[in-house]
Amino acid sequence: MTTFTALENTYIQKAEELAQKFNENAAKRDLIGGTPKAERDLIRNSGLLKVLIPKEYGGLGGTWTDVVNIVRIFAKYDSSLAHVYGYHFVNLITSHLWGNTKQQEYYYRETAKRNLFWGNAFNITDIKLHAQKQQDHFILNGVKTFCTGSVDSDYLIVSALSEEGEELFIAVIPTNRPGVNVNDDWDNFGQRQTDSGTVTFTNVRVNEKEVLRNRFDADEFAKLRIKIAHFILNHLFLGIMEGAFEEARKYTITQTGPRTPGFESAIEDPSIQRHYGEMYVQIEAARLLVDKTDVLFQRVWDKGEQITADERNELEQAVFTAKVFTTQAGLNITSRIFEVMGSRATSSHYGFDRFWRNMRTMTLHGPVDTVIQDLGYRTLYE
Amino acid sequence: MTTFTALENTYIQKAEELAQKFNENAAKRDLIGGTPKAERDLIRNSGLLKVLIPKEYGGLGGTWTDVVNIVRIFAKYDSSLAHVYGYHFVNLITSHLWGNTKQQEYYYRETAKRNLFWGNAFNITDIKLHAQKQQDHFILNGVKTFCTGSVDSDYLIVSALSEEGEELFIAVIPTNRPGVNVNDDWDNFGQRQTDSGTVTFTNVRVNEKEVLRNRFDADEFAKLRIKIAHFILNHLFLGIMEGAFEEARKYTITQTGPRTPGFESAIEDPSIQRHYGEMYVQIEAARLLVDKTDVLFQRVWDKGEQITADERNELEQAVFTAKVFTTQAGLNITSRIFEVMGSRATSSHYGFDRFWRNMRTMTLHGPVDTVIQDLGYRTLYE
Amino acid sequence: MTTFTALENTYIQKAEELAQKFNENAAKRDLIGGTPKAERDLIRNSGLLKVLIPKEYGGLGGTWTDVVNIVRIFAKYDSSLAHVYGYHFVNLITSHLWGNTKQQEYYYRETAKRNLFWGNAFNITDIKLHAQKQQDHFILNGVKTFCTGSVDSDYLIVSALSEEGEELFIAVIPTNRPGVNVNDDWDNFGQRQTDSGTVTFTNVRVNEKEVLRNRFDADEFAKLRIKIAHFILNHLFLGIMEGAFEEARKYTITQTGPRTPGFESAIEDPSIQRHYGEMYVQIEAARLLVDKTDVLFQRVWDKGEQITADERNELEQAVFTAKVFTTQAGLNITSRIFEVMGSRATSSHYGFDRFWRNMRTMTLHGPVDTVIQDLGYRTLYE
Amino acid sequence: MTTFTALENTYIQKAEELAQKFNENAAKRDLIGGTPKAERDLIRNSGLLKVLIPKEYGGLGGTWTDVVNIVRIFAKYDSSLAHVYGYHFVNLITSHLWGNTKQQEYYYRETAKRNLFWGNAFNITDIKLHAQKQQDHFILNGVKTFCTGSVDSDYLIVSALSEEGEELFIAVIPTNRPGVNVNDDWDNFGQRQTDSGTVTFTNVRVNEKEVLRNRFDADEFAKLRIKIAHFILNHLFLGIMEGAFEEARKYTITQTGPRTPGFESAIEDPSIQRHYGEMYVQIEAARLLVDKTDVLFQRVWDKGEQITADERNELEQAVFTAKVFTTQAGLNITSRIFEVMGSRATSSHYGFDRFWRNMRTMTLHGPVDTVIQDLGYRTLYE
Repeated sequence: MTTFTALENTYIQKAEELAQKFNENAAKRDLIGGTPKAERDLIRNSGLLKVLIPKEYGGLGGTWTDVVNIVRIFAKYDSSLAHVYGYHFVNLITSHLWGNTKQQEYYYRETAKRNLFWGNAFNITDIKLHAQKQQDHFILNGVKTFCTGSVDSDYLIVSALSEEGEELFIAVIPTNRPGVNVNDDWDNFGQRQTDSGTVTFTNVRVNEKEVLRNRFDADEFAKLRIKIAHFILNHLFLGIMEGAFEEARKYTITQTGPRTPGFESAIEDPSIQRHYGEMYVQIEAARLLVDKTDVLFQRVWDKGEQITADERNELEQAVFTAKVFTTQAGLNITSRIFEVMGSRATSSHYGFDRFWRNMRTMTLHGPVDTVIQDLGYRTLYE
Repeated sequence: MTTFTALENTYIQKAEELAQKFNENAAKRDLIGGTPKAERDLIRNSGLLKVLIPKEYGGLGGTWTDVVNIVRIFAKYDSSLAHVYGYHFVNLITSHLWGNTKQQEYYYRETAKRNLFWGNAFNITDIKLHAQKQQDHFILNGVKTFCTGSVDSDYLIVSALSEEGEELFIAVIPTNRPGVNVNDDWDNFGQRQTDSGTVTFTNVRVNEKEVLRNRFDADEFAKLRIKIAHFILNHLFLGIMEGAFEEARKYTITQTGPRTPGFESAIEDPSIQRHYGEMYVQIEAARLLVDKTDVLFQRVWDKGEQITADERNELEQAVFTAKVFTTQAGLNITSRIFEVMGSRATSSHYGFDRFWRNMRTMTLHGPVDTVIQDLGYRTLYE
Repeated sequence: MTTFTALENTYIQKAEELAQKFNENAAKRDLIGGTPKAERDLIRNSGLLKVLIPKEYGGLGGTWTDVVNIVRIFAKYDSSLAHVYGYHFVNLITSHLWGNTKQQEYYYRETAKRNLFWGNAFNITDIKLHAQKQQDHFILNGVKTFCTGSVDSDYLIVSALSEEGEELFIAVIPTNRPGVNVNDDWDNFGQRQTDSGTVTFTNVRVNEKEVLRNRFDADEFAKLRIKIAHFILNHLFLGIMEGAFEEARKYTITQTGPRTPGFESAIEDPSIQRHYGEMYVQIEAARLLVDKTDVLFQRVWDKGEQITADERNELEQAVFTAKVFTTQAGLNITSRIFEVMGSRATSSHYGFDRFWRNMRTMTLHGPVDTVIQDLGYRTLYE
Repeated sequence: MTTFTALENTYIQKAEELAQKFNENAAKRDLIGGTPKAERDLIRNSGLLKVLIPKEYGGLGGTWTDVVNIVRIFAKYDSSLAHVYGYHFVNLITSHLWGNTKQQEYYYRETAKRNLFWGNAFNITDIKLHAQKQQDHFILNGVKTFCTGSVDSDYLIVSALSEEGEELFIAVIPTNRPGVNVNDDWDNFGQRQTDSGTVTFTNVRVNEKEVLRNRFDADEFAKLRIKIAHFILNHLFLGIMEGAFEEARKYTITQTGPRTPGFESAIEDPSIQRHYGEMYVQIEAARLLVDKTDVLFQRVWDKGEQITADERNELEQAVFTAKVFTTQAGLNITSRIFEVMGSRATSSHYGFDRFWRNMRTMTLHGPVDTVIQDLGYRTLYE
């Protein structure tokens, strides 16, 4: 169904293999939580951290469509790894969107050469980190929350309040920079291996050349950054749905009996058919809505700084629409699958509840009610 | 949004103009019911009855995508006319699917030359019409129900039980053939101007060359016939939704006040925004699901007799998926629009209830429960 | 299921007989619209207009529970007559709630003696009627909208803006008072025989003794008036649901075939069973929510001017809860019944769409979104 | 809201106190799973295991309404303890329904005197336990699954296939009887402290006087046994809903900010109000449906062996209706509460996901689809 656009087959295959590998102990790792160090290293070694990096800088020259396809494949079995993988790119391309040419090139090359993993300490509504200007550098003090992928990362994108107030201070720093303490304190009921905990900064030095100077709302292209997270998460939601549906399907076929008297198998049972039919329709609609954003996003990305406000709005509307649909359908399906599997499928052995827990946790990132209202407003206003 | 693929601009414009024209008295004609003779003649004169007919036979050389786009445009304002227009092609191409080369050519040419309107007396589950073989012709006696577009039609596709039993008897006859009585007795609460009433046949002569001899399940291509109705109706459902949404939008913007205290206009009211946001998401998903069937259908049509069972199944699954979604979303939206318009929008002056009545009536054509179960079965079986 | 509390059996029987009588031509009268004069006279002659009037004033000494039970019985077959019948009491008891002892007694006696029908010209948000004070009387000029039951009424409750501004002017006048013009202009798609059109007032004299001087928010008891309409309408919604469900049930049993292959009758078909099961659960929940308001309302009514704000709030919360549920369930069921009846049930002959049209029209009286938000606020605030 | 009917105040207070106590570490115990030994002992010592036992046998002489009220109170905070507490009575009264007078008295007295806890090894569709007849006793060999409350129980109700085939073998045995091995192997994602694992029987002796000889379908009263579980579980579902709602309410009031721009607090935010309003309506409807079953159940219980099939059917229909509604509303609410709390509420610290996990696990006990179809069938058949 998914179509890779620019990635070589060998890498697509690697992504599939990794996903299968993750699946082997995904349920178990979900219970444990913490950092999936071994799996992150498998991703590092696969080369898939450089999908989006242009070939001229040592990357694979893939497209955003390639990236999100991999996110979706990972998410079917392990949405935590899908999440840190997807956010790696959100963080990486921050230096592209907000950095100067030198920074763009430098970080692409470094990442490609050393297979570096980027983590998140960027959140503009979280204002407890401060940047103090010194002679020729800055000093960071404070804390950031929801720092997805920070544990075991190589680089961090950091946002802070600068002393001068007005400007948002944004920089790239190596995670192992003295004074950076990644607290490894994420313990929530979903997306349990995303390491979305806190990072504390104590007198952390940031060099001038590490500061990204292009403002986040400098132009239409720079504004994209904030929406990329939603764009990527929609693929995560879709992947979770598809994974839950596929697990349920396998289970029903092999283990569930009929419920309506007079039928010999679950497959023949009209009420089981109905659930699958309705879930299928929802997943198919979700797919098309998400696929549409792939096309729009790539088009906008390829145009770069030439994009207009209209183009960005069209993309935003499509991303929001997909977000609403995947959120609602995803919550429905990850709960509904149990109706077609039955009581014994609640055994911790399977870990099938993790689909709902992951979906429930992740879909709270940006209230869907607000997004729905925003879409309604656009409809009435345009 | 919709993309015409092969039709000349001048005809697309004609379709738009006709739709606007129909809109002027659509609410009024809905109350009256009966045959929209004047509007049907406008369609005749526009040349749009020959969209699908190849240019070599005097047609416009359009595609199925062109046909269903027009159905959808008409359906926004007048789903009765959209229905008879769409079914015109289902009936017309029956001679293509089930006729021989001579018949194909003859009926295409005749229809193109004289702008003929085709009506329906075909329904394989309705078995009260009988064909009696004579020396070199047949005699029809009996009755057919749900004969959409039969009043004011030029040709009728007729299905009957043949005396020999086995074979289904299918033929094309001019509506004015002696013994054919179109009863003009359709009086249902929706799709009121589709003339879907009964036709009585009293010793009606059918000539050998009018009989279509290719069996309806002769090959994968011939089997398509039955599904075309669903394919077309999905566009009708989508058009009704879009029409209802657009009318509501105009009304809300110009006439509805805010409902949540503290807001100055309906546009700013969060609860009104929410309804519009949720309706927009449903319509957008419906659009993509329906659009997907356009691509698949045209591909299959172009392949013709070479299509495989897999290709037909893929198309069927997409058409069924779109049917389920447009049915559910359509019923929801055509009822929900009143929440964002308010009490005064129930005035008969506007006729806004016709959207629900049309949707409710038409979506019963083939129980959606059965289609959902079918999709579920395919999911589990594949 | 419903329990009459104080009414004599003979009157309960009369109500049932009238309902059956209304049913005979309800579908037909729905198409025609206008005033159901003959049926209103049957109600007059039955004595049922005096159910709530105490026996000492010539009434039947029934309770509110008795009144709303009759509303619900009527609503099963003819929600227009249920509406004008229910509103008769809302209007009648306005003289009880806002009048002085003399007025209370006078209007009760008059109504009981002459079987008078009360109509509505009261709507405090509709401000196009003005009362001008004269020496010893008032003069009304202007217009009122949504005057349910005004055609063929004997008395009207009128609200107007008084010249002095502050005070709301409320009075009872005979409908045949010179200068009162009942316009008979209600033409909406639902509740078609409620005569909820406009009334024009041209120099209409109102005598001092016809003015109700107790302010509508004078005390907790007086405040009840506004909520009685909602309380009554919930029974109307419930009745419509029950009527639609019962008609569908009869139709399915006698006319619908099975849809899922392998079953011999509709009753055995799992998908038909499912629809009925889900509709039954909704109706049963609606019943209990509405029944609860009966108990609370009668208790409050019996306490009269002694009721506290808490008691009124408890009642209001129950009435609002029932309103939300009956609105949502009612719209769902009146549309859903067609899934279990099929295409042929859309014939105008049955008029089954009137259930949805009536429900859709009437549930817009007071936006349900606002009521839901109000309930949410109470939940969080208490 | 809940009304105790026969229980002394001091015991009602004890139940409330226990519930508060359970709440202190409910989230923590949910993560751990296993047997809540300390809490079970608190129940033992409270005397609440003898609520239903007639005073003449040393019990508290409470009613079923009292029992289920306590189940509901417990379920708000800890649905595992509510479950084992409720099932204690299902098991205990099996000796009442299916035993002889001597057995009834004996087990009531013993339980009352020693505050015994009854566990479950009864499941007529689970057929892997066999009873072999000996001279004057029986020998059990095999295994039972889903044995709720078996760990730390004092008595077990056991069902087995008897050698003679026809008859179901049912008996009461002390849990510590030699050969009984309670495996403590329940590890599912919900109802984690119900010890619903397996029990293995190896040459377990059952004495003649421990065998319950009254067949489970011997009369209408005996047939009740199977439905009591559903009756009790509905109160569990209701309690979970109420608990989830109350936790969300507290959290929103104290910790959640507004989401719609222009509002100063969550309480004022229309979208948050809406969620609470809609959840409130669902909970209120669930309450009334469940309350209705209390009245019906107690009435039937009091009549005992005199009950008719009609009375049992009426009860069954009410219990099934409540089951459907509480299942659907419960799954909805336990997932929806996060929309009104936000991202930080997913912290494992709160354990708020346990409401959904408990509801999801427990509502699979008897497929709700089958129950819905059953209700539909009754509707059409009656």
